[in-house]
Amino acid sequence: MNRAQGQFSDLSHLVLPRSIALIGASDRADSVGGRTLDNLLAHSSYQGKLHLVNPTRSQVRGMACHPSVKDVGTPVDVAIVAVKADSVLPALEESAALGTKFAMVLTSGFGEVGEEGRRAEARMAELARSSGMRIYGPNCPGLNNINARLGMTFSPAYRFDQMPGPIGLATQGGGMGRTIIQAMARGIGTGLWFSAGNEVDLEVSDFVHYMATADDIKVIATTLEGVRNGPRFLEACQHAARHGKPIVAMKIGKSEYGMKAAQSHTAAITGSAEVNSAVFRELGVTEVEDVDELVDVAALLARGLPTGREKVAVFCYSGGTAALAADKVGQAGLELASFTDATTATLQSQLPPYAAISNPVDTTAVVLTDPEIGYASLKAVAQDPNVGAVIYPIPFDYGEVTTTAARSAVRVQQEVDKPIVMVWMSDKLGDGYPVLVEGGIVPARSVENAVKAVQRYLERGAWQSSHDAAWRPGALAGKPEVAHMGDSQPTPVREHEAKARLKSAGIRVPRSRFVAQQQDVAKAFSELEAPVVAIKIVSPTITHKSDVGGVLLGIRTADAAVAAFEEMMRTVAQAAPGHALEGVLLEEMLEGPFAEVVIGVHRDPVFGHVCTFGLGGIAIELFKDVSRRLLPLTPQRARAMVEETRCVRLLKGFRGKPATDIDALVDALVSVSTLVTTTPGIEELEINPLAVLPQGGGVVALDAVLNLGNDKQ
Amino acid sequence: MNRAQGQFSDLSHLVLPRSIALIGASDRADSVGGRTLDNLLAHSSYQGKLHLVNPTRSQVRGMACHPSVKDVGTPVDVAIVAVKADSVLPALEESAALGTKFAMVLTSGFGEVGEEGRRAEARMAELARSSGMRIYGPNCPGLNNINARLGMTFSPAYRFDQMPGPIGLATQGGGMGRTIIQAMARGIGTGLWFSAGNEVDLEVSDFVHYMATADDIKVIATTLEGVRNGPRFLEACQHAARHGKPIVAMKIGKSEYGMKAAQSHTAAITGSAEVNSAVFRELGVTEVEDVDELVDVAALLARGLPTGREKVAVFCYSGGTAALAADKVGQAGLELASFTDATTATLQSQLPPYAAISNPVDTTAVVLTDPEIGYASLKAVAQDPNVGAVIYPIPFDYGEVTTTAARSAVRVQQEVDKPIVMVWMSDKLGDGYPVLVEGGIVPARSVENAVKAVQRYLERGAWQSSHDAAWRPGALAGKPEVAHMGDSQPTPVREHEAKARLKSAGIRVPRSRFVAQQQDVAKAFSELEAPVVAIKIVSPTITHKSDVGGVLLGIRTADAAVAAFEEMMRTVAQAAPGHALEGVLLEEMLEGPFAEVVIGVHRDPVFGHVCTFGLGGIAIELFKDVSRRLLPLTPQRARAMVEETRCVRLLKGFRGKPATDIDALVDALVSVSTLVTTTPGIEELEINPLAVLPQGGGVVALDAVLNLGNDKQ
Repeated sequence: MNRAQGQFSDLSHLVLPRSIALIGASDRADSVGGRTLDNLLAHSSYQGKLHLVNPTRSQVRGMACHPSVKDVGTPVDVAIVAVKADSVLPALEESAALGTKFAMVLTSGFGEVGEEGRRAEARMAELARSSGMRIYGPNCPGLNNINARLGMTFSPAYRFDQMPGPIGLATQGGGMGRTIIQAMARGIGTGLWFSAGNEVDLEVSDFVHYMATADDIKVIATTLEGVRNGPRFLEACQHAARHGKPIVAMKIGKSEYGMKAAQSHTAAITGSAEVNSAVFRELGVTEVEDVDELVDVAALLARGLPTGREKVAVFCYSGGTAALAADKVGQAGLELASFTDATTATLQSQLPPYAAISNPVDTTAVVLTDPEIGYASLKAVAQDPNVGAVIYPIPFDYGEVTTTAARSAVRVQQEVDKPIVMVWMSDKLGDGYPVLVEGGIVPARSVENAVKAVQRYLERGAWQSSHDAAWRPGALAGKPEVAHMGDSQPTPVREHEAKARLKSAGIRVPRSRFVAQQQDVAKAFSELEAPVVAIKIVSPTITHKSDVGGVLLGIRTADAAVAAFEEMMRTVAQAAPGHALEGVLLEEMLEGPFAEVVIGVHRDPVFGHVCTFGLGGIAIELFKDVSRRLLPLTPQRARAMVEETRCVRLLKGFRGKPATDIDALVDALVSVSTLVTTTPGIEELEINPLAVLPQGGGVVALDAVLNLGNDKQ
Repeated sequence: MNRAQGQFSDLSHLVLPRSIALIGASDRADSVGGRTLDNLLAHSSYQGKLHLVNPTRSQVRGMACHPSVKDVGTPVDVAIVAVKADSVLPALEESAALGTKFAMVLTSGFGEVGEEGRRAEARMAELARSSGMRIYGPNCPGLNNINARLGMTFSPAYRFDQMPGPIGLATQGGGMGRTIIQAMARGIGTGLWFSAGNEVDLEVSDFVHYMATADDIKVIATTLEGVRNGPRFLEACQHAARHGKPIVAMKIGKSEYGMKAAQSHTAAITGSAEVNSAVFRELGVTEVEDVDELVDVAALLARGLPTGREKVAVFCYSGGTAALAADKVGQAGLELASFTDATTATLQSQLPPYAAISNPVDTTAVVLTDPEIGYASLKAVAQDPNVGAVIYPIPFDYGEVTTTAARSAVRVQQEVDKPIVMVWMSDKLGDGYPVLVEGGIVPARSVENAVKAVQRYLERGAWQSSHDAAWRPGALAGKPEVAHMGDSQPTPVREHEAKARLKSAGIRVPRSRFVAQQQDVAKAFSELEAPVVAIKIVSPTITHKSDVGGVLLGIRTADAAVAAFEEMMRTVAQAAPGHALEGVLLEEMLEGPFAEVVIGVHRDPVFGHVCTFGLGGIAIELFKDVSRRLLPLTPQRARAMVEETRCVRLLKGFRGKPATDIDALVDALVSVSTLVTTTPGIEELEINPLAVLPQGGGVVALDAVLNLGNDKQ
């Protein structure tokens, strides 16, 4: 797990080994070793060398057996370890000594059962590092290379679920991987499935990195309980993006309940769901919320990448269903295409006068009785140059006529390049259903699912054409490893010191004077030459100043300032006994109008520094209207952060309010990013609020909190 | 459609007639009359009299035929009209003359094809009113009484889709009704399906009203393009609520695209989606977003009504899937139950040490190999007194062992009273799937669907136990029919006149003086005795005063007030030429702190007066954080309106802000309701903002817009 980021082994010979040693080969049909051997011999088309290892048998299934992997003599590409838990480490050590490239540990009973298992896993990880033999597992069902018809797995379902296909899958737990494989029954194959269980060495990031350049894989799918190593995950995803390979990810452990359950299941750090989602978004990883959605989106992306500017058509023979689909299109923010005159003319000539021939198209039931009408009208719609994708729900099974409609749709899909996204809405899977499945169309289960899939598909296209391809996450630019949770508490820095750092980073702060003694207050007040002044307590240990009476605002005279000093010292000493009070800060108060925004940076334990932006007040606190980005921010990415919040409308001058200085806000975001990435040890920095003045007026950091890590300052 | 609200005919003899006349009976298998006759004779168990009518035939299918319905001689319960469009009206007139109770017009080619058809429909409606014969249709597939095995329909699918069951369905378009019927393939039957097409007379509300007391129907389901008559719909839903019968509704035409499509499909007024949803919520109608969700929720509600306080358990043999389900439970705001010690002890004794025995339960694959363990552990969870429902996803098909798991689940479900909500996640419908279907469990298609269904189910229970059962919508309390869209523009009332009405309704407004002449400004200013004053233009035709320079704030001296008058008269005359400027309003300005909320009432064309409440500013404008209720408001309903907004946290004193006078706000909402319901002709009333002062301080209407209808003032 501490393998440096960017180091990825070539997994070609793990995925398609030239030689395999099966350690724990067995004749017993119900044992892990026996079932794995059966899958390799009876249900695979494996052409390489297969060595069997079992210390108690000279033959297994009529093949000679080595007493130990040492006796194999020559290094093998993959050693599959299917022995009891307490024999795993010796087997791994012997495999490493032999020069084995990859060891795959199917055996369970390690990290998932307790402390002793975790210690054994630490030894496996150490062996992988020291020997160079990469380890896959333990506690995993193995690896299914269905495109090559090779099952290095003990799963009894492997033999039944063998549909090659363009999806490449990497999972942690095995259960939902099988669900995705079984989407073959809807017409889409998962050609390669990595499921590395406890991931002591090889992990999801390695598999993503491999699949980014695997020719047989068009879409990478993953279900993740947690990313173990953020920088490696980032690098793998960016590698995929550079090769134009889309990734669809489902994150498990997003709510408190789910996080608790996921942790107890694989002991992965689940991480913050919000940060994960933000990272996915900026890497162009399509996040989905359930397995059926994962299949819908992956199947669609396997057909090719859109530009994101495509408009959609709805085609249906039920008016109510067409309206429902149009609703979902509208609610998803997608756009219905306007048909060309040629399309309209074709529809007019094909369909009865009471059909709806603008988009959405309601052909009426006429297409059910005359297949040529169904074919010709759908083809006209699909060929329309303004249409990028067609959504075609089949609301119910009507026997033979539905089958005919399905056949027409398959025929059109074979002739046009754009996706026809069909929905089989009925629970009755009539004969039309397999027509769609076998015709290469992967029917969605509901209109909502279909529209959501098209939305994700178009979002991926839009991302591809708009993202900042040159950007690299800071954690990869030679930065030290990210910190881990459970470190000692960070140290707060006094407000005026934090502001001094902001000022030197180019961010304007209010003019201020630090005063330790009451007799210096009046002089400091007059030096400030500010019409209105704020007074704030200075203490190295008090962070929430206003909670203890440590902030007084609106002071307009020197006398009032002196009185405020006195009052504050007394009040705070009572409200926060035991804290050292070093003095106060006198600070000019900014007079409006201005908008108040918040810029925060914190160090995520998985992904490193994350910047959060939002409008101060209820927009953040009640409505969670924030955007997030990994550091470093470029001006393009900073602007995108501002633009993707809903409150940007306010900053741009909403309902009579003046437009604010968004350019200066973007500069401030970039300056914060530079400050954090060039100053070692910043755990947290928050400017709350940052005043954004009317256009041309710039920004001012009105308050700042800075916490430094205790290890490095 | 103008039938007075509250008048509902007894539909018993429409649903199960003692005698039927089929007008247009035919031998031709592909005609509407022929297919209907076939359904009645060959695929129904109809025991009543059947009269055939056809002017050109003496016999049809060996049965004697009357040349006209007149010749039937005795009144019939239902005349099914399956003749050509131009013969429909004469057939209806003859049926009415005979004393027929219900006429069902299957024929299409009326309102949906154009103006002439709409005129024919108007004549049908008039005939229904004058004769008392209720009309069902036209342009409809008929009526399926599956529980009585009676198909008064020409649909060729009727014979195949005959599973009796507890769902009663009312639709407008026919397509998605068939989809819901076909949920029989998931184990839930729709025993009765009304689909009245163009609804010239009988409409969804009539069917809802009938099903409210129909013994064979446990849940009413409806897909609606639009409610034609709001008050009748309200009455029907309240009738159902009084009989404890839940309603599940899907509204089509919620986005701009969908509204356009729905209108062109059935020509129903689609109405405002927001108002529809608000009405559904307050009537306890469960709104769903897609057909699969409708089936999931209806199937669950058919098992009984919860209290809404139930907690859930997640049970699964895949750890990742259990975590996914826990996530969805958390994200839906549901609560996972804590198990009793007895349950924990049972799970501990049944399951291996590496299983997760707290909620969510991950049994691990052990339940797949030993059915008794699966049975005993699921039963312990389902019987736990803290558990109200169990969510049990089956992630993949594993052949015989999955079937065994399904059998155990069905066995437990037969022994416990609480719903076990299962999910069949895989596209591979293995042998376990029909075990669930036949076992009376209606497996959801995804974890998200299952959790959403449980959420809706619990919401319905919570509504039942908390709603104000005594409340009746104002539109039913002897009020005139609601206004129709397209009426002439309403007339605005001057701000100070509007405020005078508010004041007399008991709502505090700022003290003010109207001044027409500059020479009276200084006197009015001093009379006000207010430290700070606002000046606003008074014009009968200017509504957006600040847009034309018609509002000046913060005036502290008489001289400034005089200058402001002069400036405003000049500025507004330039900015809004042609508007009569009658003078200005001098108004005391309220000094803070206070929260600004908005109370608005508008007249919805379908449902009558609707009140909208929200926090002023970005909460409403950017985040649409509002609640809505029909008038009249009771204190209980007004308080619920305030409570259901997210911004109520702010009003209650969020992050250091003082708690505001919510009691006074509730009083103001009720006062607004009383004002509107007792003043004829109010089209719109908006108080924006209403200042809500700190607790005990009351509320003040700072600005008000009132528009009166032109017909009645």
